[in-house]
Amino acid sequence: MEFSEVIAQRWATKRFEDRPVPDAVIDRLLEMIRLAPSGLNIQPWRIKLVTDPSLKEQLSAAAWDEPQVKSCSHLLVFCADTDYAALVEKLLAGMKANGVPDKVYDIVKGIAAEMAHMPPDAWFAYAQGNVFIAVSYALLGAKDLGLDSCPMTHFQPAEYARILGLPANLVPVMLCPVGYAADAAPPKWRYPKKDLLV
Amino acid sequence: MEFSEVIAQRWATKRFEDRPVPDAVIDRLLEMIRLAPSGLNIQPWRIKLVTDPSLKEQLSAAAWDEPQVKSCSHLLVFCADTDYAALVEKLLAGMKANGVPDKVYDIVKGIAAEMAHMPPDAWFAYAQGNVFIAVSYALLGAKDLGLDSCPMTHFQPAEYARILGLPANLVPVMLCPVGYAADAAPPKWRYPKKDLLV
Repeated sequence: MEFSEVIAQRWATKRFEDRPVPDAVIDRLLEMIRLAPSGLNIQPWRIKLVTDPSLKEQLSAAAWDEPQVKSCSHLLVFCADTDYAALVEKLLAGMKANGVPDKVYDIVKGIAAEMAHMPPDAWFAYAQGNVFIAVSYALLGAKDLGLDSCPMTHFQPAEYARILGLPANLVPVMLCPVGYAADAAPPKWRYPKKDLLV
Repeated sequence: MEFSEVIAQRWATKRFEDRPVPDAVIDRLLEMIRLAPSGLNIQPWRIKLVTDPSLKEQLSAAAWDEPQVKSCSHLLVFCADTDYAALVEKLLAGMKANGVPDKVYDIVKGIAAEMAHMPPDAWFAYAQGNVFIAVSYALLGAKDLGLDSCPMTHFQPAEYARILGLPANLVPVMLCPVGYAADAAPPKWRYPKKDLLV
């Protein structure tokens, strides 16, 4: 689909049809999300993919029972990775393995070392922001693939981590239920362009 | 351009040609950014658009003189708005003005009141994450319009706020220089899809 159509047609779907999305389509979506950019290309995200109805039932209760979680085909739970040291180690190994020039490697290594002095809260905010970029790819990618989705932050992250048995370094920061919309898009409204500029 | 082409071809351009992007194209880009989603549709972002060479010179010094800031045609300084109360007031008025149904209005008002108890740091992290969604639209939109761009967080926010004379509620969180690339894209690498899932 044309990019301009994708951004015009994407909307936050509240109810999904009871119709599963084929795994092959979800695979294509994951391939799109994978291409999202991140600071230093550090990719501080992980996704828990949930399709099991009983698990969705539990997760729905930890998201104020909004209808998206239970009715969607696939629930993508986007997590921010808080283990900065491990991320940097993996990044530097990944750069070497992918033939990134030494000059670029050295610059990234230097910035990463400088960023290591960030307080944990600042890293979390930064990682979360990067995850939101990956979520943007998911929302737009879903529409491109003929699916609908809904970004959701109105849920209990600690409960999600507990129910899903996530490792301690992964903090759920955004839900992205995906499926076929059962309702129609309301009119899209935004502030006028003049309000965008300062 | 097809969405899949846009995400495949987008890359972080380091040097731009000395060739201005027509204002009409930047206008189209702003119209795309405007469509970005945000939590509650609160749109907690503002952009300072910089084209003046002497201003870019000063801003470059506050971003470790990486070549993007000085060589780009238009520098988009994405700011997070920290004035949550004012944003909510504007949102509620905007919903009324745009004919959002009362039921939805009431739900949003309730969640916004609940979120008002967030510590300021948590709101900042959340607002920043939302700004990163708008930045994603900018990066992809630029490519769709035949432009190149580069997301940058390696700069001094307080210096940017001072140089640009920003109001106290706006915190620069991401730079997005835009123009015509003067260098070629390096190979894109990401972790394999299995690393994306937990």
